[in-house]
Amino acid sequence: MDFKFLQNLIVPAQTKIVMIIMDGLGGLPLEPGGKTELETARTPNLDALAAQSALGLTVPVGPGITPGSGPGHLAIFGYDPIQYVIGRGALEALGVDFDLGPNDVAARGNFCSMDATGLLTDRRAGRIPTEVGKALGKLLRTIHLDGVEFFVETVKEHRFAFVMRAPGLGDALTETDPQKIGVPALPVCALQSDSEKSARLANQFIEQARKLLADKHPANMILLRGFARYPTMPTYPELFGLRAAAIAVNGMYRGVAKLVGMQALKVEGETLADEFTTLEKHWNDFDFFYLHVKKTDTAGEDGDFVRKVLAIEEVDELLPRVIALKPDVIIVSGDHSSPAVLRSHSWHPVPTLLYSRYVRPDGISEFGERACVRGSLGVLPAKDVMPIALANAQRITKFGA
Amino acid sequence: MDFKFLQNLIVPAQTKIVMIIMDGLGGLPLEPGGKTELETARTPNLDALAAQSALGLTVPVGPGITPGSGPGHLAIFGYDPIQYVIGRGALEALGVDFDLGPNDVAARGNFCSMDATGLLTDRRAGRIPTEVGKALGKLLRTIHLDGVEFFVETVKEHRFAFVMRAPGLGDALTETDPQKIGVPALPVCALQSDSEKSARLANQFIEQARKLLADKHPANMILLRGFARYPTMPTYPELFGLRAAAIAVNGMYRGVAKLVGMQALKVEGETLADEFTTLEKHWNDFDFFYLHVKKTDTAGEDGDFVRKVLAIEEVDELLPRVIALKPDVIIVSGDHSSPAVLRSHSWHPVPTLLYSRYVRPDGISEFGERACVRGSLGVLPAKDVMPIALANAQRITKFGA
Repeated sequence: MDFKFLQNLIVPAQTKIVMIIMDGLGGLPLEPGGKTELETARTPNLDALAAQSALGLTVPVGPGITPGSGPGHLAIFGYDPIQYVIGRGALEALGVDFDLGPNDVAARGNFCSMDATGLLTDRRAGRIPTEVGKALGKLLRTIHLDGVEFFVETVKEHRFAFVMRAPGLGDALTETDPQKIGVPALPVCALQSDSEKSARLANQFIEQARKLLADKHPANMILLRGFARYPTMPTYPELFGLRAAAIAVNGMYRGVAKLVGMQALKVEGETLADEFTTLEKHWNDFDFFYLHVKKTDTAGEDGDFVRKVLAIEEVDELLPRVIALKPDVIIVSGDHSSPAVLRSHSWHPVPTLLYSRYVRPDGISEFGERACVRGSLGVLPAKDVMPIALANAQRITKFGA
Repeated sequence: MDFKFLQNLIVPAQTKIVMIIMDGLGGLPLEPGGKTELETARTPNLDALAAQSALGLTVPVGPGITPGSGPGHLAIFGYDPIQYVIGRGALEALGVDFDLGPNDVAARGNFCSMDATGLLTDRRAGRIPTEVGKALGKLLRTIHLDGVEFFVETVKEHRFAFVMRAPGLGDALTETDPQKIGVPALPVCALQSDSEKSARLANQFIEQARKLLADKHPANMILLRGFARYPTMPTYPELFGLRAAAIAVNGMYRGVAKLVGMQALKVEGETLADEFTTLEKHWNDFDFFYLHVKKTDTAGEDGDFVRKVLAIEEVDELLPRVIALKPDVIIVSGDHSSPAVLRSHSWHPVPTLLYSRYVRPDGISEFGERACVRGSLGVLPAKDVMPIALANAQRITKFGA
């Protein structure tokens, strides 16, 4: 079922959909025979909602595939994450809330160390403090070339996002990082003729940077990797006829949401409760709300089972504020699994709950991995959740007579 | 798995398959926490059969997609309903039991009202009584042009099926209905060169109709929509090596079955029991029987929960007559869901039962939506049911050595 097929069936409606994404939600038991983080968490509100919902497990990319945050989000947003790819450079720029546009080519930048003969001695410049990285970034921003704008945005320590803005820039470019020391940095080469202008500009920038940084050892050179243009994809308003809002604190999630045409709302404050307040404040202005919960993933990646349990319980405590708004459809899911026991993202399917007045409730009054196995959504591709949500929001008309 | 792959593995067998399609079978509870129509119905025979069967839920078109009767039937018949499309005009002609052929282009016709200056005043001619429509249809059948046959078959009130029959007629044609009043009817235009002949003939027919109907206000003009050729698709005998029969009272279902190469049997009488009698009478003549139950859908579309329950119970009471024939495979399913609470077709997966001597019985002695969630067929595309049925009928040989 492709987008064109679905798009032709979309009809307007006065209904609202809320999608709560607990990042890295899926988990594993600490010990064989034990419970997962979600099964351990005390979640009376999620359990009560589960009893009135259809449950299932979503596969973000494919069987056995561990998704990054980009593909994980695109999938639950309804996009085939193998077809629609966000390049690493673009993701780095989105992560610092950079407003990436169609004339931009972005890359991941590193400060690095070079000896007097031009050979690399440290690919990360001794992980200089972020403050030093910021000062050097300011220096790099003094570089000017005709017909192009450069942007340098510090990420952390030696890392920065690098963006070139000009018409007609391709992103079929080689990286300058040789991935080892004792050799010189590589030049940027165009892999296709449409990227020759980009290669020339990037090399000129690097040359100027080398001169500016000459006396800044250990950060006396830069490396650029993962060149990527702004990925263009059909947006929520175009595809689904939805005025969509994103509520997320971290820039990368705001960025991915903006790529699919959501408006990233300003969150006053940094707590999860602040995100729920933002939802309430803008309730009348949008048809679709994506609300992102970060802490579940950071706890999982830190291997902190208990902190992940607490992060889930925090969502459960705030859930009644969403229910009080009476959305027509509520989705609770994740972009991927991040079991504390693995300390990383994982390939495991993600527990998913879909509530609406018109869903066939499974009558399973528990939201957890094993409860979801018994649910009527079954094990399904994450990208299939949005069409089902749209149907429940009565936004898809009949196909054929 | 495409048809060519499957077709190469088909082997002959002396087995019989019965497919009972309760139209719009899937439902929803009237009240949250309640039972669906199928779960409410007292169905001892279906429940006993379920205990010896594999259960599951079929998705006719795709997640969240509400199928029309055409795509819903094609899917459960084993065809990809997005690839094989029956145009609206063709479906209208099939619905009046018109014997649509490969040289035909069909359209939905309307009588309409036009003022003295040629502007539309009522697109439905005040919904003239069917008898008036029939008399005017007779008048239109007097139109003759060289090298083409025209057919006009009254559907109901102002509606009729219109068919042009001649070699080399394309169906890439615009509609004449401007979808509003106060403007003239549009001419038929060819969207591709292969349809120019069709456009010319249709416009000539309309011109003659206008003259014939001049003094027949309110039905003094016609509109033609949804031009469509007879869709050609591989048939049951070719694809599956099945001599297949269709038992249905309503023309549209007979028509769709004929498109896939089933022989539409004459049903003496109009009751469901008459359909079962037809099955018994022709038992020795075919390998595959499709038996259509209409009342479940009409009750669902009327929002009549109780009448849908009774329609299901009627099937249950007649089921022993099928079982007595000892079919090798019995499929009980629907072409889509039609929950009474929605008063329309819906996107919900359809409860499905597949009985055979060689199925792995789930041992679930209940045929209902939630019982089917626990079944071993899982949630599966409707088009996958036929290959499983054919395997159980020992009509598919081994792939590879």
